[in-house]
Amino acid sequence: MESRTASDLTRLFNPRSVALIGASDNPSSIGGRTLANLVEHSDFHGQVHLVNARRERIGERPCYPSVKELPEVPEMVIVAVPAEAAVPALEDCGRLGVRYAVVFTSGFGEGGGEGIEYAERLRRVVAETGMRIYGPNCPGLCNVNERIGFTFSPSFRHDLRAGPIGLVTQGGGLGRNIMQAMDRGVGIGLWASTGNELDLQVADFVEAMADTPGIEVIAMLVEGINDGPRFVRAVQHAAARGKPIVAFKVGRSEYGSKAAQSHTASITGSAEVNSAVFRQLGIIEVDDIDELADTAWLLARAKPQPNPAGEPEPGFAVYCSSGGTTAMTADAIGLAKLTLAPFADGTTGVLRELLPSYASIVNPIDTTTAVLADDSLIEKTLLAVCRDPGVAMVVLPMALDYGEVTAVISRRVAAAQAQSEVPVVPIWMSERTGEGYRILRDAGIAPMRSVSKGVKALRRWVDYGRWLAAREPGFRPALLEAPTADADAPIRTLTELEGKTALRDAGIHVPMAQAARSRDEALSVAREARGPVVAKVLSPDIQHKSDVGGVRLDLSDDAAVGAAWDAIQAAVRKARPDARIDGVLIEPMAPQGGLELLVGISRDPVLGPMMTVGLGGIYVEIFHDVARRMLPLSAGEAKAMLRELQCHPLLAGARGQPPRDEAALVRLLVQVSDFVVARGAAIHEMDLNPVWVGREGEGAYPLDAVIVTR
Amino acid sequence: MESRTASDLTRLFNPRSVALIGASDNPSSIGGRTLANLVEHSDFHGQVHLVNARRERIGERPCYPSVKELPEVPEMVIVAVPAEAAVPALEDCGRLGVRYAVVFTSGFGEGGGEGIEYAERLRRVVAETGMRIYGPNCPGLCNVNERIGFTFSPSFRHDLRAGPIGLVTQGGGLGRNIMQAMDRGVGIGLWASTGNELDLQVADFVEAMADTPGIEVIAMLVEGINDGPRFVRAVQHAAARGKPIVAFKVGRSEYGSKAAQSHTASITGSAEVNSAVFRQLGIIEVDDIDELADTAWLLARAKPQPNPAGEPEPGFAVYCSSGGTTAMTADAIGLAKLTLAPFADGTTGVLRELLPSYASIVNPIDTTTAVLADDSLIEKTLLAVCRDPGVAMVVLPMALDYGEVTAVISRRVAAAQAQSEVPVVPIWMSERTGEGYRILRDAGIAPMRSVSKGVKALRRWVDYGRWLAAREPGFRPALLEAPTADADAPIRTLTELEGKTALRDAGIHVPMAQAARSRDEALSVAREARGPVVAKVLSPDIQHKSDVGGVRLDLSDDAAVGAAWDAIQAAVRKARPDARIDGVLIEPMAPQGGLELLVGISRDPVLGPMMTVGLGGIYVEIFHDVARRMLPLSAGEAKAMLRELQCHPLLAGARGQPPRDEAALVRLLVQVSDFVVARGAAIHEMDLNPVWVGREGEGAYPLDAVIVTR
Repeated sequence: MESRTASDLTRLFNPRSVALIGASDNPSSIGGRTLANLVEHSDFHGQVHLVNARRERIGERPCYPSVKELPEVPEMVIVAVPAEAAVPALEDCGRLGVRYAVVFTSGFGEGGGEGIEYAERLRRVVAETGMRIYGPNCPGLCNVNERIGFTFSPSFRHDLRAGPIGLVTQGGGLGRNIMQAMDRGVGIGLWASTGNELDLQVADFVEAMADTPGIEVIAMLVEGINDGPRFVRAVQHAAARGKPIVAFKVGRSEYGSKAAQSHTASITGSAEVNSAVFRQLGIIEVDDIDELADTAWLLARAKPQPNPAGEPEPGFAVYCSSGGTTAMTADAIGLAKLTLAPFADGTTGVLRELLPSYASIVNPIDTTTAVLADDSLIEKTLLAVCRDPGVAMVVLPMALDYGEVTAVISRRVAAAQAQSEVPVVPIWMSERTGEGYRILRDAGIAPMRSVSKGVKALRRWVDYGRWLAAREPGFRPALLEAPTADADAPIRTLTELEGKTALRDAGIHVPMAQAARSRDEALSVAREARGPVVAKVLSPDIQHKSDVGGVRLDLSDDAAVGAAWDAIQAAVRKARPDARIDGVLIEPMAPQGGLELLVGISRDPVLGPMMTVGLGGIYVEIFHDVARRMLPLSAGEAKAMLRELQCHPLLAGARGQPPRDEAALVRLLVQVSDFVVARGAAIHEMDLNPVWVGREGEGAYPLDAVIVTR
Repeated sequence: MESRTASDLTRLFNPRSVALIGASDNPSSIGGRTLANLVEHSDFHGQVHLVNARRERIGERPCYPSVKELPEVPEMVIVAVPAEAAVPALEDCGRLGVRYAVVFTSGFGEGGGEGIEYAERLRRVVAETGMRIYGPNCPGLCNVNERIGFTFSPSFRHDLRAGPIGLVTQGGGLGRNIMQAMDRGVGIGLWASTGNELDLQVADFVEAMADTPGIEVIAMLVEGINDGPRFVRAVQHAAARGKPIVAFKVGRSEYGSKAAQSHTASITGSAEVNSAVFRQLGIIEVDDIDELADTAWLLARAKPQPNPAGEPEPGFAVYCSSGGTTAMTADAIGLAKLTLAPFADGTTGVLRELLPSYASIVNPIDTTTAVLADDSLIEKTLLAVCRDPGVAMVVLPMALDYGEVTAVISRRVAAAQAQSEVPVVPIWMSERTGEGYRILRDAGIAPMRSVSKGVKALRRWVDYGRWLAAREPGFRPALLEAPTADADAPIRTLTELEGKTALRDAGIHVPMAQAARSRDEALSVAREARGPVVAKVLSPDIQHKSDVGGVRLDLSDDAAVGAAWDAIQAAVRKARPDARIDGVLIEPMAPQGGLELLVGISRDPVLGPMMTVGLGGIYVEIFHDVARRMLPLSAGEAKAMLRELQCHPLLAGARGQPPRDEAALVRLLVQVSDFVVARGAAIHEMDLNPVWVGREGEGAYPLDAVIVTR
């Protein structure tokens, strides 16, 4: 797994000099459009050089036949010529010491053929010269905050609302869709869309944007992550810089990942693993592209604060002049399990004084349309709500566009917002977007457009505050470590006895299991256990022992153990006549009434070793109630992981259930994590199922262990 | 529970004559605005009479001092005067034989005070004269398809896009929000917003719209249902007329129902019960107001066909010219578990011939932007997809508005749609809505605006087809029957023995349970059982027996039974010293390995008796995996109910689990339903928990029964 550190990309966003290879005087060509964007629609103050062997000059500017003839070596080149010309030109650039190349050109292996070799040649340029290639097959770069466009897109000049969001996308079309959210007032300061990711990837731009002044939130649209370590490092860098990342990941279903693979070369990976890693790293995952802009915008407007578990969540206020709209917004807030702030007496006093008696002055507020008769009341009452000490944010749904009536409301809302640091978040629910809408947009408080999606964004904002508080800044995922095993070594499944022995040797408590090669030996081993035992078939060929009748429980005397021996032999021989049977394992029966969980380890090809914890037995397949983490696992993360489970009340002690030994379970999870991390890639997969969890003080330990190693 | 049948409201939507009580020459007053809507902005061909005691005439029209002086008795009156004048005027109207009154006036008890008495007087008018009152406190009626407005809203003349949707709302503001969806091309033919529902309710308008020509789908926004039987009848009437109902229900969370109650008088009821009833009656429930318009519009454009369980679901096609957008749409479709149609060879052949080699010609289709070079290809290829025999609907996401480029696409899409009956459903994802958008809108194929919300609408469309196939047209909910018990009778909880006896007397198999009043009697009863038994405390004061240590399982011999007797006595005395202990119940122990479910009966104050089925024990509280139905329950509905459970694989036989006696369980559910229905309101509540479900052939029966009667 190659993992180069991103070089500083600051100068890529605003280089001292640029050469456009393939400059053209045809305004509809790629080269012509790029030139227009660069010299007409940008505020670019660097040198611009044109390369075109078939022209003397374009407009006032001289053309040069190649990069080699330019009067200086440009810091960056933009390549707008076909692949067969682009490759030698880029080889020249590398040799000359050009730092960055933005390559629009397609035909580098997306369709197979000679493009594969072209791509290989470019990779060699990168490796040998250190020149960074952005693309190929990319739509370029829009540095909106500095008004610089290295792009052929005719849209560049239309989508120039500066702002705090940095946008990184895989896919130019979807990226431009997000840029068009500018129409509703969302400001996007910088956009890169990574094309084929021959060199620079999403991760590199995330890392660079984390260091870009003026960018406060990073929005990311990804179909696949190629380089896990690079990705994780970039994300952790953004977190260290205090810049939240919001991500929309395409390819979460089979249809989606197939379609994504068919038009990119990315590895799309398991959606569940991706989502778990995102959550663990504090990446805020959204479910649709429109939610990406909404959520990023909310995070830019309202800086999330760490909100430790146990503390109450931030309180919201709902402010509206329509009863029905108030109710439906409060409803959405309730369904999202968010909190409406109870108002301080002072706030209620102001509202009581200013609003009519039939208004609702407790949160959620329905001012009624009475405020329209004296619209200064909107500003005064809204400001009172913003100033309430318990209110972190004011949600302001607007169901209707009533022309000037609504414009008046918007003016008052904007005026109140100008006097308060507490964010007012309008939700413009109507399809009609007239003057009232534009007032909000131009006041910098671009509304959301849907109550349910808006409230989802609020929920994510709150969750991010929780994550900030729980964040472990020193966390260094195991995938960042060098592999300690040969990735090509053969894969082998340990027998249960081997697996349990390995765990025990690592200090993990596992019930003593002993192999019995004969019926007599089984009897004598069982007698030594002094209590009921379990017998399980001992075979290198069988993993799912109970599926073949290879397990017998609760054997209390010789007769039971002997019968179990016979029954196991018969059942397994019948179900799997080919399997070698070495005898049985005898181990003490776990006490009745334990809770059974499963603990699994898998290895994602991109994101490294992951732990899965969930309710064991058949329930995992029915309810899919699992939590996942990248390793290594701290005790804090282990606890958080268990709290994430829907079945957590079974551990904590639900109605009539005893509290379980959660502390022992946490210890076990950390031990298993340490076991895996210490062995690096040598542990390919593990399945501890069930893990028995006793009552408080009784402990927690695996009753079975399947370990797959290299 | 009053439940009057709705009279024919056809003439309310378009009466022969109308009198406006409170007509005004002040154009900004309620009366003036209503007059303008009626005579300037409507195509109303009936007689218009004006009532105003202080004017001779308004414009060309004479004014009369009261309804009594009018030259004819109008079929309808519109009341735009304050409550103190409105009440006597309406009393006059009733006496004169006016058929309908639309009452804008507020002050009828929403704020308490004398309004309560006013409301009572109006109720008397309705009861004594049969005049139907719409309102009070309503914004009037918009009969868009006939261009008639009985409303004071200045928006009337702006929101006049005729169409197949009938809209009924509680709440004028939210209703107008939906009307503003006309801006994006959704046609709404008729809108009523019911105000205080003093007489006419949501149900009456649903019923009337079911009979209104030109209305194909009914969209409903409700905060509360006051009259369950009337509601159910109306909904069943719409189903019989083949008109789907889409509903957005506000008040599903505590915040929401509190806020809804504070501004209306409705009973909001339990959200889960509401949703279950909606599902059972075929009402398509949505989660946000924007989804209401989207979903209703989809159902109007694409008539759902019955799709029996077991048949494959209808197939969708995705058609797009951007790879990323194609992938994300396919992804959303996959996540919603919808089906992409595999194309017939003929379709693939056409696509292969017309599209470039790097296009994706399998579903989902990515034409690539190559089609822009010859946009006739869009029409041809889209039409080929529409004509594929496996394609029920084509989803056409459009990520961008590129001005004229996009307009060209829209024109071709509209042209293809004009040649095919298969609906093309565009999803316009950009915030920019220019010419391309307007072309689609004006072609009658108004786009959805969000991929995730659009796909939710598709999912609901498919689910509705399933419902249509499973629908039992003869289903008559128990709440429509006259109550057979006094609703004010005292409530009593039967002892377990009484409850089980009642069930057994009704022919429901229940394990023999026998009371033992003494330790010796317990021993002898247990001996007779010839097998392990269960002992449970027998006490009229204790319901949750295991919570107080009142249950002992698996007692195989005298020693165990005796010890259980002692232990139960001790534990219960300790936990509940006040409880009377009458002895223990002894019953045979159910065989090991049964699946435990719960079956409950509750009585919703508005919607009548409901059955709940779910995974029993502690899991119900953890996973909330339950299904609910109004009674009576047919075997078909019982099966459907079990299939709805997430834990259904446990019944059907998940990995390593034996298939359960689902047939016996279905029989039990139907028997319990019959038991409850036969007793009417006498059964207040029932809790059969656990219900033991054995392997195939072993049966299914309750192990415990709590019955609350009146």
